[in-house]
Amino acid sequence: MILTVTLNTALDLTYRVDRLVPHSSHRVATVTERPGGKGLNVARVLAALGHDVTVTGFVGGATGEALRAGLTGVCDALFPVAGATRRTVAVVDAASGDTTQLNEPGPLIAPSEWSAFLSSYEELLTSASAVALCGSLPPGVPVGSYAHLIRGARGAGVPVLLDTSGEPLRRGIAARPDIVKPNADELAELTGSWDPLPATRAARRRGAHAVVASLGPSGLLAATPEGMWQAKPPARVSGNPTGAGDSAVAALLSGLVSGEPWPRRLASAVALSAATVLAPAAGEFDATAYESFVAGVQVVERADAA
Amino acid sequence: MILTVTLNTALDLTYRVDRLVPHSSHRVATVTERPGGKGLNVARVLAALGHDVTVTGFVGGATGEALRAGLTGVCDALFPVAGATRRTVAVVDAASGDTTQLNEPGPLIAPSEWSAFLSSYEELLTSASAVALCGSLPPGVPVGSYAHLIRGARGAGVPVLLDTSGEPLRRGIAARPDIVKPNADELAELTGSWDPLPATRAARRRGAHAVVASLGPSGLLAATPEGMWQAKPPARVSGNPTGAGDSAVAALLSGLVSGEPWPRRLASAVALSAATVLAPAAGEFDATAYESFVAGVQVVERADAA
Repeated sequence: MILTVTLNTALDLTYRVDRLVPHSSHRVATVTERPGGKGLNVARVLAALGHDVTVTGFVGGATGEALRAGLTGVCDALFPVAGATRRTVAVVDAASGDTTQLNEPGPLIAPSEWSAFLSSYEELLTSASAVALCGSLPPGVPVGSYAHLIRGARGAGVPVLLDTSGEPLRRGIAARPDIVKPNADELAELTGSWDPLPATRAARRRGAHAVVASLGPSGLLAATPEGMWQAKPPARVSGNPTGAGDSAVAALLSGLVSGEPWPRRLASAVALSAATVLAPAAGEFDATAYESFVAGVQVVERADAA
Repeated sequence: MILTVTLNTALDLTYRVDRLVPHSSHRVATVTERPGGKGLNVARVLAALGHDVTVTGFVGGATGEALRAGLTGVCDALFPVAGATRRTVAVVDAASGDTTQLNEPGPLIAPSEWSAFLSSYEELLTSASAVALCGSLPPGVPVGSYAHLIRGARGAGVPVLLDTSGEPLRRGIAARPDIVKPNADELAELTGSWDPLPATRAARRRGAHAVVASLGPSGLLAATPEGMWQAKPPARVSGNPTGAGDSAVAALLSGLVSGEPWPRRLASAVALSAATVLAPAAGEFDATAYESFVAGVQVVERADAA
C-alpha cells in the first residue's frame, strides 16, 4: 500500500454566502464538511486511481470523529490524540466565487503522543511501497520531524516524498527524500531565487534525489537523477486550484510505485492537476478531462547545467 | 426547576484574527468553542443565579456531542435528532473588536422527531415552575410551533416566556404567553411601529399578558397587567452586547418564579443585562457589577393609556 502522512489534519468546512461583508451578520446558505489536509487529499486521489492507500497523522476530539466518519476508500490508521483536530473554514462568495480562508491552529501534540506515533509509523512502513509526508506541523511536533520520518522511511527501504514548506521543508530536504514537491513560493523561500530553473537545481543540491516544482499554469519543472524536464498543461484551465498540488503528488507517487519513466510521471501529474482545477473540491478530479489532458501534455527536456 | 427550550441550538465558535480581509487567508490566533443558542445562555445565567435549570431542544451529530460536552451546571434534557447541530462562527478583529458573524442553517427536523419532542416536552413540564421558549426554529419545525408549546405550558399550568422573532413571534403571541421579550427590531417588525411606547402596548394587545421590550442602552419598557414601567441602566456600559437580552430573560424568569413585583424584576433584568455587556461572552455576567448596578436602576411608571 501507499502511506500518506498528514500530521496536521483538518475538518474542512466550506460556507457559501451571498457576499462576505466584514462586521456584519451572514446566513450561510450551504455548508460542506469534509476531511482535509494535504495528505488526505493525496490519498483520496490515489484511491480513485485504484491504489491501496493508508492514511495516518493525528486526529482528536469531536472534529476528529467527524473527519474519520468522512473518510471513504482509504484505510484509516490515524493516530488518536487528546487535542481536537482543527477546522478550516472557506467562505465562498456566491456571486464572484472568491474565497476567504480561516484556518484554526492545530492541536498541541504532547511529547508522549509524538513518540507513540513514531512507533506506529515504523510499523506502517513495513507494509508500505511508498510514503508521502504532507503539509504543516501541528504545535508541539519538533520542526525537524520530517527529517526524522524521512530517515525512518529510508532505513526501511521505502521511497519517500515530502510536500511541505518553510523550516520543516528546509530541515526535511537535508535528510535526502526521494522527491520534494515545492510550489513556486516554497521554492523561492527555500532557495532565495524566483527563477524556477536555477531554484529547482539549487533545491536538489540541498539533498533531494528529485525536485518537482509546481508552477501553477506553467506546469511542473523537475530536476531528477535521469534529467531535467518541464511539463506544461495542454490548455489553460480555470476553476478551483485548491488541491491541484496534492493531485500532482498523487500522480508522482503512482508513477513511482509503477516504475514509470519520469516524462510519463510528469505528464500524468500535470494532467491530473489540471483535471483537479475543474473539480469542485480538493481531492477530486474530472476523470474524463484527465484522460483527454494526459496525451496533450508537452514534456520538454531542459539542459541540465546543474 | 426552570425549563429553557432552544429548538435551534448551536455550537458557537469565536475566532480571533488580526483583521478580517475578504478573499484572503487568515491564521486564527485563538478559538473558543461553547454551547450556544438563546435558551442555553438563559439557562447558564439562571444556574449562576442559583436556580435549578433543565435545558431541552434539538441536538445531533458531532457538533451536538461537542455542545453537550460543554454544558455545565444545568440538567441536559436535549432531544437527539439525526441531523447535526449547526455552528455559528464569530470572527473578531483583534484590533477593533468588530465582529463578523457566520450562521449555519439548523438541521432539518423530521415530523417524527418533532412529535417525539412534543411528548418529551409535555413530560418535562410536569416538574417545571416556568418555561422559556427561545430563539429561531430549525428547518422542518412548523412556523406555528411556539403557539403549540405555549398552549401546552398553559394547559399544564406552567408560566411561559417567549423570546423569538418574525412569524414564530407573531403566531406565538396569539397563544397568550405570560411574557414576551422582543427587542426594538422585533417589536417594530411585529407592530409596524418604531415608537416603543405604543408598540409595546400594541404587542400586548396581540395576546401576551406582559410585554417586556429590550431597548439596548435605553433599558427595558414593560407593559404588564399591573402597570407600565420603564427601567433604565444606571450608567452607559460598553463591551460585548451579545447575550444581554438572554440575561434579561433569565432575570425575568427568576423574578417570575420568586413572585417579585414587576419593578424589582425589571431592575434586576436591566442590571443583569448591563453586567452581561461587561462579560466576555453570552451567558456570563460580571457578578460584582450586577450587585452594584441593581440599586442604581431607575424604574419609572409610565402612564398606561392603552
